[in-house]
Amino acid sequence: MSTDDSNAERQAHRTSPAVAVVDAQSPGNVGTIARAMKNFGFEDLLLVDPPELDPDGEAYGFAGHAREDVLPNATEVTFDHLVENYHTIGCTAVTNEDDRSHVRFPFSTPADLAARLPTVEAPTALVFGRERVGLTNEELARIDEICSIPASAEYPVLNLGQAATVTLYELRSVTLADDETQLPDLERVRAPEPTIDRLYEQWAALLEEINHPPEKREKTMRMLRRVYGRADLTEREANTLIGLLRRATERPAER
Amino acid sequence: MSTDDSNAERQAHRTSPAVAVVDAQSPGNVGTIARAMKNFGFEDLLLVDPPELDPDGEAYGFAGHAREDVLPNATEVTFDHLVENYHTIGCTAVTNEDDRSHVRFPFSTPADLAARLPTVEAPTALVFGRERVGLTNEELARIDEICSIPASAEYPVLNLGQAATVTLYELRSVTLADDETQLPDLERVRAPEPTIDRLYEQWAALLEEINHPPEKREKTMRMLRRVYGRADLTEREANTLIGLLRRATERPAER
Repeated sequence: MSTDDSNAERQAHRTSPAVAVVDAQSPGNVGTIARAMKNFGFEDLLLVDPPELDPDGEAYGFAGHAREDVLPNATEVTFDHLVENYHTIGCTAVTNEDDRSHVRFPFSTPADLAARLPTVEAPTALVFGRERVGLTNEELARIDEICSIPASAEYPVLNLGQAATVTLYELRSVTLADDETQLPDLERVRAPEPTIDRLYEQWAALLEEINHPPEKREKTMRMLRRVYGRADLTEREANTLIGLLRRATERPAER
Repeated sequence: MSTDDSNAERQAHRTSPAVAVVDAQSPGNVGTIARAMKNFGFEDLLLVDPPELDPDGEAYGFAGHAREDVLPNATEVTFDHLVENYHTIGCTAVTNEDDRSHVRFPFSTPADLAARLPTVEAPTALVFGRERVGLTNEELARIDEICSIPASAEYPVLNLGQAATVTLYELRSVTLADDETQLPDLERVRAPEPTIDRLYEQWAALLEEINHPPEKREKTMRMLRRVYGRADLTEREANTLIGLLRRATERPAER
């Protein structure tokens, strides 16, 4: 490969690792992986010995909108091509316990990779193995590093499509900038402090109006402050509460 | 419900939130969710208006080992039962942008919940809605809080089974202690420093033996230190390298 090709390839893969699936048996799992790729900003699907992907079959049925791009654009490659052209990261549920064997040790978790991959600029492929047995020891021996999802010791083996989904979810920070997710920048907006203070003033007025025992008022006000304090009230919530409390305070006495 | 019942229920759910699926259409998705529950240490599956779960059908086919417990132990409940007995957390791909609407705002991400849920002791249910439309606004209005998975703005809608898998993966710390995962305590073991030092000494001997230019040796040794330093060599790797380098150093000169 010429230096120009190398540079072009390096550039193309800079922010988005490829996803490789080796010897999948179920078209549905390939579709599920394609969908997760599109959900989390991955584009380049590589298939080694794939099952037939019938446009009217399960692969396309499970792929959601990835049926329009990720799945039809998938490339069939050999395992040799994979290990020769990519830094390969093999995903497996079963690791070795320590350095008496290096086939599956040391390993990283997807969260470890999420911290490290964005700092590396080179073609990288996340490699997932076939259903049931995953990647073989022979395949893992040729793969550059090992990744394993922490799961219950009682049953740590995820379904292929689910394992890829979790891994791609965890690695979304490699492919998606914060402003490229569907979520608004802020998860919460806290009302301005003067608004919050007016809420407490309105509560104090209501406590007086309902003749809440004076000796209990301080403690009650403290409780209210704790409740609203950890709820991070929005401005609209605070204003609505103030309005309701004002009406409760100001309503004509019944007798 | 009596106080005794309340206490018993509170106790039972202390560390493991229930997982509720509302009006799922596909038995396969219910099976996928059951499998993810078992993978990440959840036990209590609640089904509102479930599809038929034929023991020979897709639900059991997709459930893996969860076909032995989580799935057959699932409880059919009403939506009313759910909101009356649990702190409900509704999962949705689509949030509101700000506090002009509170149906889907404020929200938490699964990672936010993972930080907060372990500190709360009360019956909690993670609620997932039907395929395609998810939870309706009417359902979300009755649910206590909102959770949303960050995904690509281009296509943020995960498949039901995949959304539950990601959420349960992220919340595994609520149900699984560190020593309850399949992974060994340590992901890496770094060789003792004296062993690493012997590796560098062996390299220095080899550089001398192969007549590496003396003025380059310091720089070369620094490069080697950087390479091995960030690789966190295991003791076995370090000893194997030392042995190989010793044999390269000590082999008879060819002429």
